[in-house]
Amino acid sequence: MGNKKYQVDYENSFSVQLSEELASNIPKLLIFVQENIAAKKFIKLKKALELIQPADISELFDELTPSDMAIIFRLLPKNIAAETFIELNSSQQNYLLEILTDKELKEITDELFLDDFADLIEEMPSNVVKRILRTVDPVKRQKVNILLGYPKDSAGSIMTTEYINLHHYLTVEECLHKIREQAMDKETIYTCYVTDEENKLIGVVTLKDLFTHPLNIKIGSIMDTNVISATTDADQEQVVGLLSKYDFLAIPITDTENHMVGIVTIDDALDVMQEEATEDISRMAAIIPEEKAYFETSVLSTSKSRAPWLLFLMISATFSSVILTKFENQLSVISVLLVASIPMLMDTGGNAGSQSSTTIIRGLVLQEVGMKDLKKVVWKEIKIGILLGAALAFVCFIKLLIVDGLILGTIDITASYGLLTAFTVSLAIFLTVVIAKLTGGILPLIAKKFKLDPTVMASPLITTIVDILALLIFCYIAIAILG
Amino acid sequence: MGNKKYQVDYENSFSVQLSEELASNIPKLLIFVQENIAAKKFIKLKKALELIQPADISELFDELTPSDMAIIFRLLPKNIAAETFIELNSSQQNYLLEILTDKELKEITDELFLDDFADLIEEMPSNVVKRILRTVDPVKRQKVNILLGYPKDSAGSIMTTEYINLHHYLTVEECLHKIREQAMDKETIYTCYVTDEENKLIGVVTLKDLFTHPLNIKIGSIMDTNVISATTDADQEQVVGLLSKYDFLAIPITDTENHMVGIVTIDDALDVMQEEATEDISRMAAIIPEEKAYFETSVLSTSKSRAPWLLFLMISATFSSVILTKFENQLSVISVLLVASIPMLMDTGGNAGSQSSTTIIRGLVLQEVGMKDLKKVVWKEIKIGILLGAALAFVCFIKLLIVDGLILGTIDITASYGLLTAFTVSLAIFLTVVIAKLTGGILPLIAKKFKLDPTVMASPLITTIVDILALLIFCYIAIAILG
Repeated sequence: MGNKKYQVDYENSFSVQLSEELASNIPKLLIFVQENIAAKKFIKLKKALELIQPADISELFDELTPSDMAIIFRLLPKNIAAETFIELNSSQQNYLLEILTDKELKEITDELFLDDFADLIEEMPSNVVKRILRTVDPVKRQKVNILLGYPKDSAGSIMTTEYINLHHYLTVEECLHKIREQAMDKETIYTCYVTDEENKLIGVVTLKDLFTHPLNIKIGSIMDTNVISATTDADQEQVVGLLSKYDFLAIPITDTENHMVGIVTIDDALDVMQEEATEDISRMAAIIPEEKAYFETSVLSTSKSRAPWLLFLMISATFSSVILTKFENQLSVISVLLVASIPMLMDTGGNAGSQSSTTIIRGLVLQEVGMKDLKKVVWKEIKIGILLGAALAFVCFIKLLIVDGLILGTIDITASYGLLTAFTVSLAIFLTVVIAKLTGGILPLIAKKFKLDPTVMASPLITTIVDILALLIFCYIAIAILG
Repeated sequence: MGNKKYQVDYENSFSVQLSEELASNIPKLLIFVQENIAAKKFIKLKKALELIQPADISELFDELTPSDMAIIFRLLPKNIAAETFIELNSSQQNYLLEILTDKELKEITDELFLDDFADLIEEMPSNVVKRILRTVDPVKRQKVNILLGYPKDSAGSIMTTEYINLHHYLTVEECLHKIREQAMDKETIYTCYVTDEENKLIGVVTLKDLFTHPLNIKIGSIMDTNVISATTDADQEQVVGLLSKYDFLAIPITDTENHMVGIVTIDDALDVMQEEATEDISRMAAIIPEEKAYFETSVLSTSKSRAPWLLFLMISATFSSVILTKFENQLSVISVLLVASIPMLMDTGGNAGSQSSTTIIRGLVLQEVGMKDLKKVVWKEIKIGILLGAALAFVCFIKLLIVDGLILGTIDITASYGLLTAFTVSLAIFLTVVIAKLTGGILPLIAKKFKLDPTVMASPLITTIVDILALLIFCYIAIAILG
């Protein structure tokens, strides 16, 4: 969230006009900035920059030369500079850290909240880290070290320790005073945490609660004692799930003995949610998730994240090849149409299976589907499979009669043998769809059962498994009916 | 967010103990509730229920019989009842509405914020809607009608009109008083909006700003005049994007002339974000998105959402069949291995293509990739394609020598013809991967260019297109090299 404090005078029409003209219009802002840097109108620039949101300044920086970026960065008020800094990519951060003096560096790091500071330490090369750590006082250094000690993607690693801590014997009025004193240095003041003398978490009170109760009442009697919290070792996804389920703006993080140690705020949770959705989508497309954006990764590292599954799936397809080698001649002798139908069968099976697996995987993520639902899933997918399989088989049969019978002449639809061939392919479609739906529905749940990530069961793996099953079904029924 | 006001006395150890024992443990809570309903201990139940979060009560309701649900619902304090009500699914809501008296109904609807009330009106059958609307006063009815008039998925349809409105000439102290008076009825008090005499939006001030400035200062001089807002007709996804980009807790919604009309709060944005991610994931798996959870939809409606793409893709696969029909005999005569390699080729092409398309689609959603990047995407995907294609071709060649040469004997690796066959398949893999990566990278951008939803270009469609390209490449190079 960051500590916003724009000192803009509404009465000053110059500022307002400037703001409306430039606000979040990056191309216009870029021209304005470049012109004024060229003309060395730094005071005008400084005044204008105060009006721009940090997220927009960061977008502007993507378009500027490094030296112009450094000029602009130095013109920013230091709280906006800090907020902008955490929005930059690591190469931009690295560049700025190299050219900033120790004094400037300290000004920035002083403004950063602990969670953002810890993220920065984690991402910078070790020589830069040493320099950064030299600028901060021992207490802050120690606090950051604790945050850095938590495992990646745990609640501890994304929390901040800058929260408002109250005691249950304080009145609403005393609490409001205390919040006023501490507001500047806290990541959020909207949710406050009530702890006992041992720092154990005993209640939560929102600023709205304080605003809707008499000033002289003790917060012990208005706080919510049914505290929803997470421990430092909880998975970040779980923390986000709790925030979203209960519609909180922040969630308290405790150690295993319920001692209050930090909070995770909704804006950080939103980022985690985006990140987790991207990871899930990547895994579903057989990609090993990367944290960086598409254009921030090298060709080599993108290739590395895509290679393992591609290789594995290519090798797995050997099974299909082996089956086809075994049956190909037999099938060809019966009818060229049979072999020619294999791509359609495989694609349809793969698509039908990945529809089901994707639905179940998403259901698991959103906690709409659980392990206990296995039977219900099996039953529902079988029914869907029969319904869709029948519809597809019917359309396929008609298509074969028209395309292969009338247009291509691959089968003779006036002879019962030709009709039987079309029937065989259609029956294979039906069975493939039913089996694909069933497999797609069950596999993510089995993965979950064995503590594997269900997303790896998505499209590509399902496709490969269903391919093999579809081919086997097809070859056997073709030989049984026509052979 | 809703108006939370738990009147629990911390000194009362009974409550605290109960809370810790039952809090968010649904199975335990279920037993507790059922036992106490059976024993008719309603006062004990009422006391306990005050401690439970609405989201948990809603989960509890999924496990209760309708009549038990009605008993519990009537025991809830009316603000918690309202918050629980909006978390229920529509059949539960419908059931409760039918059995509640007009007086009880009015108590609930009075507690609902306008956006939740509008959602309810939209989801209920018309006879229930008539009854609900009879309970509310004409002013509220008119306000809801305005909300209901905005198009689905627009900012207007998800906003609420219950925000804090301030004037620039008020002091911080005056504002704090005003907020205190209005807090109970507002969806959020943490971000306040400053409007002029014509109700035009001129600034934003957060409660934190008010807490970090002297009490006698005018808010006109501390408010942020660079207001980021959205218009009522903006897409809900765009609104969520702004909230997430700027780390706001709420965003103002204006009409086209900058008159303030409502706000969208972060908790609603979080729901929209989940919903949009689910929609994208569904579309990527060739499913027409549904709003309801997996178990809330009938077999028929799930089938309907899956059928169109399955049918379309099955029919599209006709092209592969036609190509294969044309070349099958020629290929078989050259080597059985060639036809047997087709599934592997097709799968690998499909997987390689969907990796790229998924990455680009996600990049578009997160605005990390844009139309202007077409050239960069083409160039990067070609390089990745060459790198990965070469790696896969190499592994494929080795695999063919070992599996088909040594184990199956499908090719004679001591003869140059056998080696040439393996080389042909490997070369086809290489070219397929390069073309798949290129196609997967470009197609989402082309879809975007033509104002189509890029997600429809994901796995299944890419797979079908790449299949056809892969087959054509393979057949032509096999005949050119070996024929």
